Amino acid sequence: MKEITIALDGMGGDSHDPQAVISALRFAFNLNQSLHVMVFGAASLKTALDRSKLDHSRLSFCLAPENIPQDASPKAVLTHYQKAALTQAILAVKEGKAQAVVSSGGTGPLVTLARHYLGCISNMRPALAAKIPGGKDKFSLMLDLGANASCSPSDLYDFARLGHCVLQLAWGIDRPKLCVLNVGSEQGKGSKLVKSARDLMLSDASISCGGFVEANRLFCGDADVIVTDGFTGNVALKAAEGVAHLFAHQQGVKRFFALLAKPEWLQPWHYNGSILLGVRGNVIKSHASATSEALAVAIVEAWKVAELDLCQKIAQHLES
Amino acid sequence: MKEITIALDGMGGDSHDPQAVISALRFAFNLNQSLHVMVFGAASLKTALDRSKLDHSRLSFCLAPENIPQDASPKAVLTHYQKAALTQAILAVKEGKAQAVVSSGGTGPLVTLARHYLGCISNMRPALAAKIPGGKDKFSLMLDLGANASCSPSDLYDFARLGHCVLQLAWGIDRPKLCVLNVGSEQGKGSKLVKSARDLMLSDASISCGGFVEANRLFCGDADVIVTDGFTGNVALKAAEGVAHLFAHQQGVKRFFALLAKPEWLQPWHYNGSILLGVRGNVIKSHASATSEALAVAIVEAWKVAELDLCQKIAQHLES
Repeated sequence: MKEITIALDGMGGDSHDPQAVISALRFAFNLNQSLHVMVFGAASLKTALDRSKLDHSRLSFCLAPENIPQDASPKAVLTHYQKAALTQAILAVKEGKAQAVVSSGGTGPLVTLARHYLGCISNMRPALAAKIPGGKDKFSLMLDLGANASCSPSDLYDFARLGHCVLQLAWGIDRPKLCVLNVGSEQGKGSKLVKSARDLMLSDASISCGGFVEANRLFCGDADVIVTDGFTGNVALKAAEGVAHLFAHQQGVKRFFALLAKPEWLQPWHYNGSILLGVRGNVIKSHASATSEALAVAIVEAWKVAELDLCQKIAQHLES
Repeated sequence: MKEITIALDGMGGDSHDPQAVISALRFAFNLNQSLHVMVFGAASLKTALDRSKLDHSRLSFCLAPENIPQDASPKAVLTHYQKAALTQAILAVKEGKAQAVVSSGGTGPLVTLARHYLGCISNMRPALAAKIPGGKDKFSLMLDLGANASCSPSDLYDFARLGHCVLQLAWGIDRPKLCVLNVGSEQGKGSKLVKSARDLMLSDASISCGGFVEANRLFCGDADVIVTDGFTGNVALKAAEGVAHLFAHQQGVKRFFALLAKPEWLQPWHYNGSILLGVRGNVIKSHASATSEALAVAIVEAWKVAELDLCQKIAQHLES
């Protein structure tokens, strides 16, 4: 098994508790025996890591105490935050010291840095893609989940091609069914954006377009790849999360029933770790409010992506 | 109490079972003692109504057996479906025979007919607005939910003004807080559309703009009015519905626990009946797959809107 190192941004995310990072690393090391992690963060994190009982032979640390605010402009990100943990972690991937980066920081800075330092495939706009549950033992890949607030039909078509590559190269599905998220499944429904994107997809014989899918069928496994703009995708998944949260976070006896009622395949931490597709490097975004278990899942996802060298394979596939 | 008649499109919706309409009328008559309903539909529905034990003094019937397909073009709706149940029901409102219309038919035909026969307020684009739960005993009004697949910033600003009127005139909230649905709550986040809409709202001193709200907070009562374009609003609510459905429709013992776990204030049929704001008449859209109870709720909502003469009051308010 080849040795793989993941660069972890230890400063991003809502929690800056070193113990949360340590728990995540403990889970991740248990889940995957050939994982190495290079942590970028503050001195307090280094102290805590040094004192921890983690396997130190699988761990290295780089001091990078700065965090990039979620709402920093692209210009500010590139000029003022060269020593930030996320910047340094992405540079480690660029320089080959790590094979993938994991960050719970803001999407904006992550996309800006990945585009700038790693570069885009065929001038595509990168998109965040996540595995979502589609019933027992079924999954769909959904993109974009927030890298692009507004998109053109050709952006959506690019997202479809990127998703197609992931299903073929990583999930082993030869001819995945690609659908566009829309307000109805009927042909004539929806915005010009989704209709034009659907037409572009239909005109490409190398991919299989299944038309439209409605948001109430998002978790039914109707499509292998669900294509949408980053604004709609982000809103759809957050609305779904919001309702799941309402069920899970009730008071008293209802909370207990909710835990018993939850479908096993709908545990949210099973699904942490979106991949930024369309850049020349393996970049994984973890949820800002991810638990330690969820962050561990994102780190292991990053390992799998790096092991396949997925982003490089996608680049070869789309540029050949 | 003034006598109010609701025109009911008996042909729209997924179920064409006359018994479902009869059950809905029985529920609605029980919920509201001063309700009269004018039903538009097929002869089979008339036969079933005649045989039913409903109070016939509160019921009238108009034969209009035609249904308008959901995906009929606006031109086709206006030229080929003049005798359809929905068209006749809207004409009954125009002619003062009924004070509000209720339909479970397609949004497209409903909006086309309402605009054409009833007219728009101040050249606004009409928007579908619904009361959504925001916690125990709390609600928000959300619009647009699908009348407009693409919107401009000034459309969203118009939706904010319409929502503001409903909260003031019908909910008795003097200075409602209006927020725009976005991918983040931070000022700089989101598309040009939502940022421009927010700026238009902030520049109007007569309304109170609370900035952005994220989709995972949709059901938390953070805003009195949630403003969005019809594409995003439709996708957000359907994604939420999809997850709620996953919980509710499991097999075996989990189904039982899910019923026990459900927050009382999240019963979907409590919330059926969106109102089409921005037209000169009271138009209520019921969910296409509404149960009899849910259809009854929409009919009673229509009664309340008609009793207030809400759409006329909104027109006076915005045109004064």
